[in-house]
Amino acid sequence: MFGEALQRVRAQAPVVHNITNYVVMNTTANALLAVGASPVMAHAPREMEEMVGIASALVLNIGTLSDHWIEAMVVAGRAARRRGIPIVLDPVGAGATSYRTNTALRLLAEVSPTILRGNASEIRALGAQPGTEPGATRGVDSVHATEESLDAARALSAAHGCVVSVSGATDLIVAGEKVARVRNGVPVMARVTGMGCTASALTGAFAAVTASPFDAATQAMAVMGVAGEAAAQRAAGPGSFQIAILDALSALSPDDLQRGVRVEAE
Amino acid sequence: MFGEALQRVRAQAPVVHNITNYVVMNTTANALLAVGASPVMAHAPREMEEMVGIASALVLNIGTLSDHWIEAMVVAGRAARRRGIPIVLDPVGAGATSYRTNTALRLLAEVSPTILRGNASEIRALGAQPGTEPGATRGVDSVHATEESLDAARALSAAHGCVVSVSGATDLIVAGEKVARVRNGVPVMARVTGMGCTASALTGAFAAVTASPFDAATQAMAVMGVAGEAAAQRAAGPGSFQIAILDALSALSPDDLQRGVRVEAE
Amino acid sequence: MFGEALQRVRAQAPVVHNITNYVVMNTTANALLAVGASPVMAHAPREMEEMVGIASALVLNIGTLSDHWIEAMVVAGRAARRRGIPIVLDPVGAGATSYRTNTALRLLAEVSPTILRGNASEIRALGAQPGTEPGATRGVDSVHATEESLDAARALSAAHGCVVSVSGATDLIVAGEKVARVRNGVPVMARVTGMGCTASALTGAFAAVTASPFDAATQAMAVMGVAGEAAAQRAAGPGSFQIAILDALSALSPDDLQRGVRVEAE
Repeated sequence: MFGEALQRVRAQAPVVHNITNYVVMNTTANALLAVGASPVMAHAPREMEEMVGIASALVLNIGTLSDHWIEAMVVAGRAARRRGIPIVLDPVGAGATSYRTNTALRLLAEVSPTILRGNASEIRALGAQPGTEPGATRGVDSVHATEESLDAARALSAAHGCVVSVSGATDLIVAGEKVARVRNGVPVMARVTGMGCTASALTGAFAAVTASPFDAATQAMAVMGVAGEAAAQRAAGPGSFQIAILDALSALSPDDLQRGVRVEAE
Repeated sequence: MFGEALQRVRAQAPVVHNITNYVVMNTTANALLAVGASPVMAHAPREMEEMVGIASALVLNIGTLSDHWIEAMVVAGRAARRRGIPIVLDPVGAGATSYRTNTALRLLAEVSPTILRGNASEIRALGAQPGTEPGATRGVDSVHATEESLDAARALSAAHGCVVSVSGATDLIVAGEKVARVRNGVPVMARVTGMGCTASALTGAFAAVTASPFDAATQAMAVMGVAGEAAAQRAAGPGSFQIAILDALSALSPDDLQRGVRVEAE
Repeated sequence: MFGEALQRVRAQAPVVHNITNYVVMNTTANALLAVGASPVMAHAPREMEEMVGIASALVLNIGTLSDHWIEAMVVAGRAARRRGIPIVLDPVGAGATSYRTNTALRLLAEVSPTILRGNASEIRALGAQPGTEPGATRGVDSVHATEESLDAARALSAAHGCVVSVSGATDLIVAGEKVARVRNGVPVMARVTGMGCTASALTGAFAAVTASPFDAATQAMAVMGVAGEAAAQRAAGPGSFQIAILDALSALSPDDLQRGVRVEAE
């Protein structure tokens, strides 16, 4: 299943439209190219409808949000809904400020993303029950293990009818009662900016070519993890890792992926 | 001619003012530094006049355009016109949305760029005759060979009095009846984001130190191609290629350039 | 002292809030992660107060300024003042345009930064006495040696009660009558975009964990220089240097730092 999904990305080269943050635009565009997809970065409200019209997936990322960009995300999200293409939302920094938490909740409500992909602290912040305390976040880095976000992920999946994909040492993918855990990856990934954002972008690419969003989210995290393991073999630190994972995404064969995946589904 | 042009860039270190897209700002600034030029990135309308005043070339790139940025491009372009410094326009994604096509056409009309530098699909979209079909684009990646854009390039060159530089497996440079073809470069360049934008930035650097825009456009594509060939020798994939081409641009000697160039002029 | 400061950064992992330019966001975020800090990039005025509330230092950088971003810098700066966390200002391109010079002077007056960190041309432009000529700048690159900015740095330190940190072949750190000179570093750093901006970001990280801003500014320049020397051993040019310095920042041990530092204080 994993190897075939990677082959589909390369065969179809889906156009993935990203409205994402300034920090990771270059990295995520290159990761999409490396894995075989075709990235577009565009955010002017006046071209959203048309740009979404040529895309096979939409990725929304609030990492450096501002009001104009949120407007573009809403317009693009609605256009994607109408066209029926998958939407991935990365709620970067949800919980760190109410502006981010509220924007993520607004996008969940108005855009109805197919897949919500964040770290454990973000998912806890969004899935907190009224009157409970999600626990502190610390800027945009997670301070929770992914298992600590399982209840929140289930609640969000049920409330919004979306798949929830939580990255961490073990990635959690939740869809209703279904849970998959991806045990690939390496610790240095937490020391490189934009690895979570890259996972979100790849999730868009796999969602474009895979019918099940749950499977697509799992595939993307597996690809990130297996490529990360290969990259760590060649990297001398976080700088060279950031480059090596692009090489690894490009070099990854369907067979190597299939052999390397460590996924458990329940 | 090519080696001497590279020497001039390094001797004069021209200030190249870029109003460009978020995805490639770091890469293009580093490429300009590597080749020996001095990059400036600035877009506030209130400083355009003054910033253009210290620049030796202006590069306009609509890759992540929005209304405020277009305003800055028009102001900067007019100031560059008045000063008589060369202007390079990269119409990223023209044809993908009408906003992009119309913005590129507006900049062609109002700013009168010295050199229009794009991929084949973009040039076809801009040079299409009324009532004809330019052929689909696919996001920001070209789906046409450069030879398929020759008629459009000629039409644009005649209509706007500019040089048209089309990047691809073989680069085409067109000025009126003159055509040059640069046969350097490597396929991996299509797998790294911003290689076209980097070519546009370098075109600005060479236009700043070369009297003929046709020659400058040809020099820039030759430098990209020869440096790309050197970088490919050291790169394990698209990630390490993006880094290796910066090293190669810095290490490229005028003699190596002159020996490596494969250019045909008709 | 230097080794202990580095240990404190890694032990405390201070959240450093950056309002910085598009060109260097990725590089500076990765440099902060590599040294052991936790970067946040955010600029929406509506979240400034809250985001500053979770930060241990604020870094303001005007490299690609526009009116909305300046507004965010003022709001964030005032919030940081109220909270008593250190503020670093990088006046990128001051002197190149009056918009940049005036914005830097306005931020000096309204935000009262703890540390002003620029290159020699920028410091001269800001510290010029009325009626005197600071000397030309050339875009965003310095055309002066740091010693030529000593008088301006002293004047700015006295006028604004801040530490002034000037990067160059020899870095100058000035606080009132005190001067330190950091003689680490390598020439290739001038060929990579954003090295000054990275120094400013690291200055924020060290200011977050060191009581004396003068010491913190000196520590940050020493870390940049020693890591740069290590990186140059592994780099084949400016491209690979940009990556190698991230690896070096991550690998730098307190002992290696202490041994490698070449600092003179008067």
